[in-house]
Amino acid sequence: MLINEVKEKLIAIVTKANYDDSKTERLVYSYDATPNFQSMPDAVVSPRNTEEVSQILKVCNQYKVPIVPRGSGTNLCAGTCPTEGGIVMLFKHMNKILEIDEENLTVTVQPGVITLDMIHAVEEKGLFYPPDPSSMKISTIGGNINENSGGLRGLKYGVTRDYVIALEVVLPNGDIIRTGGKLAKDVAGYDLTRLFVGSEGTLVVITEATLKLIPMPETKKTMLALYQDLSAAAKSVSAIIANKIIPTTLEFLDQPTLQVVEDFAKIGLPTDVKAVLLIEQDGPPEVVERDLTRIADICKQEQAVSIQIAASEAEAEALRTARRTALSAIARLKPTTILEDATVPRSEIANMVKAINEITDKYQLTICTFGHAGDGNLHPTCATDARNHEEMERVEKAFAEIFEHAIALGGTITGEHGVGAMKAPYLEWKLKEEGIAAMKAIKHGFDPNNIMNPGKVFAKDSKKRVVVTK
Amino acid sequence: MLINEVKEKLIAIVTKANYDDSKTERLVYSYDATPNFQSMPDAVVSPRNTEEVSQILKVCNQYKVPIVPRGSGTNLCAGTCPTEGGIVMLFKHMNKILEIDEENLTVTVQPGVITLDMIHAVEEKGLFYPPDPSSMKISTIGGNINENSGGLRGLKYGVTRDYVIALEVVLPNGDIIRTGGKLAKDVAGYDLTRLFVGSEGTLVVITEATLKLIPMPETKKTMLALYQDLSAAAKSVSAIIANKIIPTTLEFLDQPTLQVVEDFAKIGLPTDVKAVLLIEQDGPPEVVERDLTRIADICKQEQAVSIQIAASEAEAEALRTARRTALSAIARLKPTTILEDATVPRSEIANMVKAINEITDKYQLTICTFGHAGDGNLHPTCATDARNHEEMERVEKAFAEIFEHAIALGGTITGEHGVGAMKAPYLEWKLKEEGIAAMKAIKHGFDPNNIMNPGKVFAKDSKKRVVVTK
Repeated sequence: MLINEVKEKLIAIVTKANYDDSKTERLVYSYDATPNFQSMPDAVVSPRNTEEVSQILKVCNQYKVPIVPRGSGTNLCAGTCPTEGGIVMLFKHMNKILEIDEENLTVTVQPGVITLDMIHAVEEKGLFYPPDPSSMKISTIGGNINENSGGLRGLKYGVTRDYVIALEVVLPNGDIIRTGGKLAKDVAGYDLTRLFVGSEGTLVVITEATLKLIPMPETKKTMLALYQDLSAAAKSVSAIIANKIIPTTLEFLDQPTLQVVEDFAKIGLPTDVKAVLLIEQDGPPEVVERDLTRIADICKQEQAVSIQIAASEAEAEALRTARRTALSAIARLKPTTILEDATVPRSEIANMVKAINEITDKYQLTICTFGHAGDGNLHPTCATDARNHEEMERVEKAFAEIFEHAIALGGTITGEHGVGAMKAPYLEWKLKEEGIAAMKAIKHGFDPNNIMNPGKVFAKDSKKRVVVTK
Repeated sequence: MLINEVKEKLIAIVTKANYDDSKTERLVYSYDATPNFQSMPDAVVSPRNTEEVSQILKVCNQYKVPIVPRGSGTNLCAGTCPTEGGIVMLFKHMNKILEIDEENLTVTVQPGVITLDMIHAVEEKGLFYPPDPSSMKISTIGGNINENSGGLRGLKYGVTRDYVIALEVVLPNGDIIRTGGKLAKDVAGYDLTRLFVGSEGTLVVITEATLKLIPMPETKKTMLALYQDLSAAAKSVSAIIANKIIPTTLEFLDQPTLQVVEDFAKIGLPTDVKAVLLIEQDGPPEVVERDLTRIADICKQEQAVSIQIAASEAEAEALRTARRTALSAIARLKPTTILEDATVPRSEIANMVKAINEITDKYQLTICTFGHAGDGNLHPTCATDARNHEEMERVEKAFAEIFEHAIALGGTITGEHGVGAMKAPYLEWKLKEEGIAAMKAIKHGFDPNNIMNPGKVFAKDSKKRVVVTK
């Protein structure tokens, strides 16, 4: 628990109404969407403005109280689980869309804005914010920025980082700084904006962001390519891009995923094939038509057994929604769902899918694989039961091997979910000791007292590297 | 001069052939493309590989010898002037294109590769590397990455930062680390890749880079819009983008620039108008046609007096070349040419152009203004004479006022040229003391002995802020 002095100081800043250390409230914020991580915070505080955030950080820095900034807690890396106690900071009062600037094509928001609310608001003006994480109905922009969230449109349009052009942040010492601007270009010093994007709340608290928008694509079309051979599907992904077509979306779903999604969503997905690619292209109508024809030809050359083009936007939306519900659908199978996001160069997708299947068999697990194939970003997802310790040990070994394979193929341990507490032990596999040391130098420079989301990104102990069995 | 011990150690690493401390060689590398900055290095070394770079850095770190990594020295911020002596490091041996990966759409290069050579090499495979700084015929990729170079295609395609996806770098302590990968997505820890891009050689030495490529646009068209009113030209820029068209290129040239470029290049540029916009669109032919028609309509509504569409690619290339030669052309006017790159939100272009003209009149200077109007990135360029101290004082005051105005309009002191030694005194105007302190924390974390390009980015003294006179 916080000492009385700290509690009183925090209440003096945010008022009693915005400070809560009741057991119920602490329990609510003791976990996020990540299975198997739970830890009680000492209190939950909800600042009303940047100045209050600054004052809170000064108090926490003085008394060395951990701070965990939290949006909606939809992350899958235990990034907002208060593993070392301290304060969970909520942004429920800082949830305004401050400005949509139609001349400079920007939107300026507070961190607590719900992603989809903002997307709808800018779309009403004919503008487009591409990053669309699957959790966007409930995730916040602040959370998206801290995690550098991806989504289904990343292949063509990039991720959250590519759209953040200015930030207001509060440093652990309470300093308020502004980075960037409504500027297409700015090289005045180091790129703090991009450093803070994806820093998982370990460096600063984000209190305002200006995001770049682009014109809304004129039209969009959606198709499914069906395969009886997993590697043919994977090869189609590389072939489409090697043919110099960049679709908006190029999603992969394997048969186990199709089956559970169809059981859940009942929209008539094919469940008698080994894999499907969900492919979307947007842009001017003539370009979309032409690209879809070319993509269909490529898929057929790569042994697609059938190509289905969505007849209407309603049908297309149903397919997209089905894809977005994959995690929820799999979560119905067993009590615990562990979703990973090992990522490889897209030319290695076929090898990675093959490796995941071999590892699944080896450890006798239920793993559904789906994901952003165009980005090389797969989500092998294990339906398991955390109470079954013997099985959980196999799950852990299987995922360690999956990470090991991804790295061996030139990939990474996380494409879009972040490191958090969950993957911190594996980070050294990707970055080596020297890379971790470089990142720690930054962390220490900003946060010498380690109050910002401690225990995330940097592990106390790294996992011993397993030997890949081929 | 270096002490003998250091000299011997460096020669032992690179061999005598790649170590030069002759007066001639030192003189050659005592300056870069920035006027009015000159300072002798103690020696010039040319490592042949990453391992040698690592060994050199270990020696320099031990003996606290400054290191200035240098490509072709085309930067305009005195970024590679060895203002505190030490070693200039050249990459003439590390100049290979290591791989063009057509499946993952990447190119991997050593830092000494000439930008245009690489662009040609990837274009032969139908691939496209958009960043095209005006100096690309002689600039190196390593220099482009260190400066986060822009170019004429930045409006639609972004800048160097947007294409760097993996780096191999050497830290001041000699550690060699790799960041990123051939990956569309990677959130394994802080985004060191983007932190190093634009860090101006003050953090690490870049020894290898993997760059993202995109499919080559199918076609491109070029037009000129002519104006008798500067602010009408500036307003057209905002209007085009507010109408949700993003051209590849949207360049602005004022009458003084047109005149000197035409005198130099003699390609029939109109010199009887107050300003022109050079506009390019690329993409599928039908889209380019349609966009050009819409852009022409918008320009006419905004009082363009004439629209000229380039009849052939040769004519278009002549226009682009004319624009690229603006600096060289202006440099013929007087002995000293000072080119700046104050940048504002594009909605403020009209205000910024107006301010530049008023400041030019106030200080009775010759300033030609051109630049990437679509990015809000203007290049007011002063033809002057460094030997005329009285005039140089007026030049300095004028540019200080230009920076002041840019910041007041929500802009920045540098859009694409970097801070270097030249703008270091002004950086605090943009970032405030707290922002500088945050950046210094990073610098100190990586380079506690301040051997990496010392005297750049961070000024010993900041300029007192002038009062804007409206």
